[in-house]
Amino acid sequence: MIKKYSIKELLNKGKFFINKKVLVEGWIRSFRYSIFITLNDGSTIRNLQIILSKEFRKKITKEITIGTSIQVIGIIKESIGAKQCIELHSLEINIYGSVPSSILQKTILQPKKHSFEKLRKQAHLRFRTNIFSCIMRIRHHMAFCIHKYFHENGFFYLHTPIITTSNCEGSGKMFQITTIDLKNNPIDYKKDFFKCKTYLSVSGQLEAETAALGLGKVYTFGPVFRAENSNTSRHLSEFWMIEPEIAFYHLEENMNLAEDFLKFIIRYILDKNMEDLSFLNEHLKKWKKKEKESLLKKLELVLKFPFQRISYTEAVKILIQEEKKQKIKFFNPVVWGMDLQSEHEQYLVDKYFKIPVIVFDYPSCIKAFYMRINNDGKTVRAMDILFPEIGEVIGGSQREERYEILLQRIKDTNTDKNKLWWYLDTRRFGSVPHSGFGLGFDRLVQFITGMNNIRDVIPFPRTPNNAEF
Amino acid sequence: MIKKYSIKELLNKGKFFINKKVLVEGWIRSFRYSIFITLNDGSTIRNLQIILSKEFRKKITKEITIGTSIQVIGIIKESIGAKQCIELHSLEINIYGSVPSSILQKTILQPKKHSFEKLRKQAHLRFRTNIFSCIMRIRHHMAFCIHKYFHENGFFYLHTPIITTSNCEGSGKMFQITTIDLKNNPIDYKKDFFKCKTYLSVSGQLEAETAALGLGKVYTFGPVFRAENSNTSRHLSEFWMIEPEIAFYHLEENMNLAEDFLKFIIRYILDKNMEDLSFLNEHLKKWKKKEKESLLKKLELVLKFPFQRISYTEAVKILIQEEKKQKIKFFNPVVWGMDLQSEHEQYLVDKYFKIPVIVFDYPSCIKAFYMRINNDGKTVRAMDILFPEIGEVIGGSQREERYEILLQRIKDTNTDKNKLWWYLDTRRFGSVPHSGFGLGFDRLVQFITGMNNIRDVIPFPRTPNNAEF
Repeated sequence: MIKKYSIKELLNKGKFFINKKVLVEGWIRSFRYSIFITLNDGSTIRNLQIILSKEFRKKITKEITIGTSIQVIGIIKESIGAKQCIELHSLEINIYGSVPSSILQKTILQPKKHSFEKLRKQAHLRFRTNIFSCIMRIRHHMAFCIHKYFHENGFFYLHTPIITTSNCEGSGKMFQITTIDLKNNPIDYKKDFFKCKTYLSVSGQLEAETAALGLGKVYTFGPVFRAENSNTSRHLSEFWMIEPEIAFYHLEENMNLAEDFLKFIIRYILDKNMEDLSFLNEHLKKWKKKEKESLLKKLELVLKFPFQRISYTEAVKILIQEEKKQKIKFFNPVVWGMDLQSEHEQYLVDKYFKIPVIVFDYPSCIKAFYMRINNDGKTVRAMDILFPEIGEVIGGSQREERYEILLQRIKDTNTDKNKLWWYLDTRRFGSVPHSGFGLGFDRLVQFITGMNNIRDVIPFPRTPNNAEF
Repeated sequence: MIKKYSIKELLNKGKFFINKKVLVEGWIRSFRYSIFITLNDGSTIRNLQIILSKEFRKKITKEITIGTSIQVIGIIKESIGAKQCIELHSLEINIYGSVPSSILQKTILQPKKHSFEKLRKQAHLRFRTNIFSCIMRIRHHMAFCIHKYFHENGFFYLHTPIITTSNCEGSGKMFQITTIDLKNNPIDYKKDFFKCKTYLSVSGQLEAETAALGLGKVYTFGPVFRAENSNTSRHLSEFWMIEPEIAFYHLEENMNLAEDFLKFIIRYILDKNMEDLSFLNEHLKKWKKKEKESLLKKLELVLKFPFQRISYTEAVKILIQEEKKQKIKFFNPVVWGMDLQSEHEQYLVDKYFKIPVIVFDYPSCIKAFYMRINNDGKTVRAMDILFPEIGEVIGGSQREERYEILLQRIKDTNTDKNKLWWYLDTRRFGSVPHSGFGLGFDRLVQFITGMNNIRDVIPFPRTPNNAEF
């Protein structure tokens, strides 16, 4: 039997294969002069050039169109072309499936310029395009290196529940889940599957905290949901979130971890996905002519310096000063106690510091109940990491580990205490200082791939009115 | 500053730390003779022995109870005890949180024998027990090595949608999702979030197929849902599933992959988690006295031989023969065309072959529409892998890649064609032979940890009437 290789294997080992007989399979990306086929199998952005032997030229030329899937057996030869070091001289070709529609070819498989909106309507076919396959390979490598990072640093992966009874964070609208026949009214939740109202989780943090208080270091990596009617290029109704939670960690250690983690991911992708990144870099240059900086430069900038760390109070001072000096005029004037808006965050990151910024110690009134109160009584041990272009990429905090203070905060924020008895329990039995953060995975994919719309970095995006595929 | 170490690091490097000053943090597992504390921080099942210095003995003895969280600074010394090679002589101890309730200590933290049912009612605290922390660490290593296996074999990780519009498989009851205020009647789905009825996905396979037909090799690893009212020790309403899908793969390659994959996971856990496995092995011996075989022997048996591969038709022949020979009497008599029941599968695996069995080429009438029809017109290219104890651990098939035949199968099985236009599309544009399988992650964790109830291998199990945490 002749051995089957991926195109990535063949091109990576290149000359090792010369004069060897191999079998490859893939989809045709181009066909020129009735001789040259470029074949892609998804393993890499690069194509293998196939030279049709004379006997095939007439026999199968008509059946060969862009997108047709074929199997080729042939001999690897050194290539005289400049683009590749090897090529495959065919001995046998089998056609699996052809592509009759020339419309499909023009819009999806070989357009002059891809319209991302058009591609989204063919979400099932966009895996066949160069641009989307690059994004998917980068997405894979990012997910893998995230697991690798936590694994090598002694964290345990935790599957927190998707179906939940309460919106513990008090933030965000939720999707309700039911098995009741909704034609019957009134609805009796005692007859529902879980005998109560249930929702899709917005975060696994509270559950992850209970796990960290036994296992030490844990992280989640799973889907979370928001039922807000947000039709923007940065929001999804269903997205993947990473939430590490660490016992015996103070806010500073949490910031160190978050910064090291982000840099690790970007370094890993620059190291392992350069060919996909380069492809995106070139195409973004063509498509987003406004972009001053290249994608690669933007990524390298994140690695270059330690992130700027400033307290919320310092950040507010800087913003007010800059406004006074008439260097900038904000739509929302800055006052202490307000939540920072995109315009403020962008000014700090893009104009003032020109590197990623970590803002910490936010006013307690704008943050969740579980964040640890500082001695000033006014601020909490929260931290947000702000990135160029996308703004907040990570939000985290040291958690309130003191039972009485936590209870008071729950009351003050009108959170339902009764649904949190188990969470409160962890502060009664061997409570410890602990911290964690959340990272929206898809938004980081958007940053690293440089895509304008978050719907183009996830296979089947879920947004308002949109769950067809 | 004194460096902080995990207990795992200290015990693994052992003598390297002797006479070094270190900082450790964790929860007290035992306290004897007012001198010896055993401390655990979740990083390992092993504890660090701490020797209280004289000055502490009186000062803090009263505050120290099982479960109390502490920070210790001390000097590592060689231990004269037989159980450990090093111990920590304390210089400074800080108490973070004590445990007032002696009830909690007796039921959760230090019971004579754990009642798993009781523990489930304290799901947020069971991370603090030896048994559950072992299971969670093994679960982590299994998840990690699954990502590692696919990554190293050229697969790309794919996030398929959780929210979906249809039950494409036609199998299993589904949870409905809505944002409509259910007090209003009649319900108008045009006003719902996605403008149509939506459900929680039972499988990512069909979406994964579309990705494999562009990227070559992909796999999913995410939560799936079943709304069946199954109150058994083997079913969860929310569980994690792994579904690889591979272009240009025939059934035999699919079986090879599945067998290699399962053996890789078990070998990895035997290699990396022996201390957790040994702990479980010992405790299972005590608790499940009926068990003839040890946990470790059971796992090694899976690795020892190639899995037995037989067609469904052969399997039926064997079962009928065995019944004729009066070696066994089945509750459900065996006839060709029926689905094999647990009793039949168990007989094949535990009594007849005594190793894992792959049954392939099932009758088409008992399998899903997307499985490839054999030339006999009666059977499909399906395969199930049957394991000792748990039965079916993997189910997979070669997919029907021929458009016309697939369309006919969709009609024959009363599947809604209109909802599958995108799936059918992939057979119209460069279709290729392809295959894949599904593995229920939690059930494999159950097999590897030897637990009787699947609810004890996932942090917060979801089952009928049960979604409190």
